[in-house]
Amino acid sequence: SSTVQLAVIPGDGIGPEVIAEAVKVLHSVTSDLDTTFALTEYQLGAEHWLASGETLPDETLAKLRDHDAILFGAVGAAPGDTRIPSGLIEREMLLKLRFSLDHFVNLRPSRLYPGIASPLASPGDVDFIVVREGTEGPYAGNGGTLRGGTPHEIATEVSLNTAHGVERVVRDAFRRANDRPRRHLTLVHKHNVLVYSGHLWRRTVEAVAAEFPEVTHDYLHVDAAMIFLVTDPARFDVIVTDNLFGDIITDLAAAITGGIGLAASGNINMDRTAPSMFEPVHGSAPDIAGQQKADPTAAILSVALMLRHLGFDDAAARVERAVDDDVAGRTGTPRTTAQIGDAIAALVS
Amino acid sequence: SSTVQLAVIPGDGIGPEVIAEAVKVLHSVTSDLDTTFALTEYQLGAEHWLASGETLPDETLAKLRDHDAILFGAVGAAPGDTRIPSGLIEREMLLKLRFSLDHFVNLRPSRLYPGIASPLASPGDVDFIVVREGTEGPYAGNGGTLRGGTPHEIATEVSLNTAHGVERVVRDAFRRANDRPRRHLTLVHKHNVLVYSGHLWRRTVEAVAAEFPEVTHDYLHVDAAMIFLVTDPARFDVIVTDNLFGDIITDLAAAITGGIGLAASGNINMDRTAPSMFEPVHGSAPDIAGQQKADPTAAILSVALMLRHLGFDDAAARVERAVDDDVAGRTGTPRTTAQIGDAIAALVS
Ligand SMILES: CC(C)[C@H](C(=O)O)[C@@H](O)C(=O)O
Ligand SMILES: CC(C)[C@H](C(=O)O)[C@@H](O)C(=O)O
Repeated sequence: SSTVQLAVIPGDGIGPEVIAEAVKVLHSVTSDLDTTFALTEYQLGAEHWLASGETLPDETLAKLRDHDAILFGAVGAAPGDTRIPSGLIEREMLLKLRFSLDHFVNLRPSRLYPGIASPLASPGDVDFIVVREGTEGPYAGNGGTLRGGTPHEIATEVSLNTAHGVERVVRDAFRRANDRPRRHLTLVHKHNVLVYSGHLWRRTVEAVAAEFPEVTHDYLHVDAAMIFLVTDPARFDVIVTDNLFGDIITDLAAAITGGIGLAASGNINMDRTAPSMFEPVHGSAPDIAGQQKADPTAAILSVALMLRHLGFDDAAARVERAVDDDVAGRTGTPRTTAQIGDAIAALVS
Repeated sequence: SSTVQLAVIPGDGIGPEVIAEAVKVLHSVTSDLDTTFALTEYQLGAEHWLASGETLPDETLAKLRDHDAILFGAVGAAPGDTRIPSGLIEREMLLKLRFSLDHFVNLRPSRLYPGIASPLASPGDVDFIVVREGTEGPYAGNGGTLRGGTPHEIATEVSLNTAHGVERVVRDAFRRANDRPRRHLTLVHKHNVLVYSGHLWRRTVEAVAAEFPEVTHDYLHVDAAMIFLVTDPARFDVIVTDNLFGDIITDLAAAITGGIGLAASGNINMDRTAPSMFEPVHGSAPDIAGQQKADPTAAILSVALMLRHLGFDDAAARVERAVDDDVAGRTGTPRTTAQIGDAIAALVS
């Protein structure tokens, strides 16, 4: 029998509540396996920063590296909490993890579950994945300010794009497309304006496409992608895109498929040189924290992505089927966070 | 009696067709004014480039400067026409005009007309304007490629943001908000990641807000804005944002209000140091060009924006009311481009 070492970062707001249910489902679905899941909790996030002044200390990062995977809740201060410098936790903790652990595939599936209401009048059969680059682009933190605070201020943001970084995520996206029934990949960029990075992305897609003769591919400017995401989201199968466009597209994708209560994500290091991290797309939602109002489904679906990444495909599929069944039976009567977790845990056991 | 000198750039694809109707409506609505509108046509765009190798020659740019305003159709080659380097016309002609003529306010109203179908199930009462910065940001064309075409390629894109550029567009947005019943402004950015430019935009909004005590304002990250644009677009009144976020948001806004057939825009130099340019948001749509299938309403509404910019408020309002009436009477029976133009021209005469 083997042991999987999992780091768990519940974080702030509703993070601990939804992670508790995700862990419940994890234990339930793995109870009959010959593998033990050993969980170590790490306190990180806005609350931890307020208490300790630490965002992500080097020693903690080193300890996290020794795990097989990380399960992450949500971080972020209450809006209007001016004690925390804006964006500090996001950059110094969440993005630092993604960059330090080389999470180059930010995987975000979007599916409209039967029975879930979409804000779209006729959404069609929506089932696509976004493969968002996770370690470069406009997120590189490169830029600066000259003559700050004066009428002559100049602020720059530098998007960094490398052949190495683009190629590995494009190849991953093609592989995933190749494994899906429709085998179609769409590159989303804005190459008519962002010519240098646009050229690199397009050249790379054309080159890698040759390795996947069964995958068809096309291209959309990000603005045109916006239109199709609300008029015909069913047309998408696999979208590959840069870090910032991916951020924008995946929130829209979550919205059209019934909200971020169901949107899971994986920050994946496909080279397995460091642990991957799985998190619901939603934030810490301080306004409903501690009230058992949060939907833990996105966190639970993130567990499924984690199980698949770790090679437990059957367990992953069982979690996904349990969510399917639970969602299909939703009547509109509100349930607590724990009730939803209990129901899904019972379905997988 | 005075004369307004208008430059008209019909462009490619459906551009000439929709511009013909826009000009028809312009003549009709101004026929009883003591002002003559003198039109000079300029051939520019993909077709012109194929015929001449010219994108926007300096002499043409100099001539355009001598006009009071520019009415622009659409430019762009047929997709798959590999004779035209990708993005060339967009950058060397359209963006060159916006930048050379200092069109710092890219104004894009979004309104859901009664009788127009939205892809949203319950869109509510959508009526907002996006004030998109038009002369800097990621559109500055700044960036480059190192080791191009090799496995070590690095491509950069530099977003340039200046206090001068941000302040003038933010002040314009506050002024417009102050003139609207709801008097609300929303800054959209991504300051938790794009910290340098984000800081400049936020600082500027706070500073300029002090000049407009009756305007309330809030902030949304661009990803959160995506969600609200499909779940509650009626919440928006005035959105101010950077060049790239504005590009993305306005196509989504056009989509949720029933498509780009109705989306007008103004590229406005509010300092009036050069002519402003008015254009439908839609592209050249080569697939339906020359078939009288295009809806000229976006071009006609762009004429209304132009008339207002030139001080002909009554004529502008008449065009807008005529469009209201025409749209309200649409039955679904297809009309030709010219029939729609004729109908609106008759309504304003
Ligand atoms: C919190 C923020 C830094 C983050 C991002 O921009 O990637 C979030 O929006 C997300 O999509 O995971
Ligand atoms: C054609 C392109 C350069 C342009 C832009 O990106 O601004 C278009 O999408 C627009 O919104 O007017």
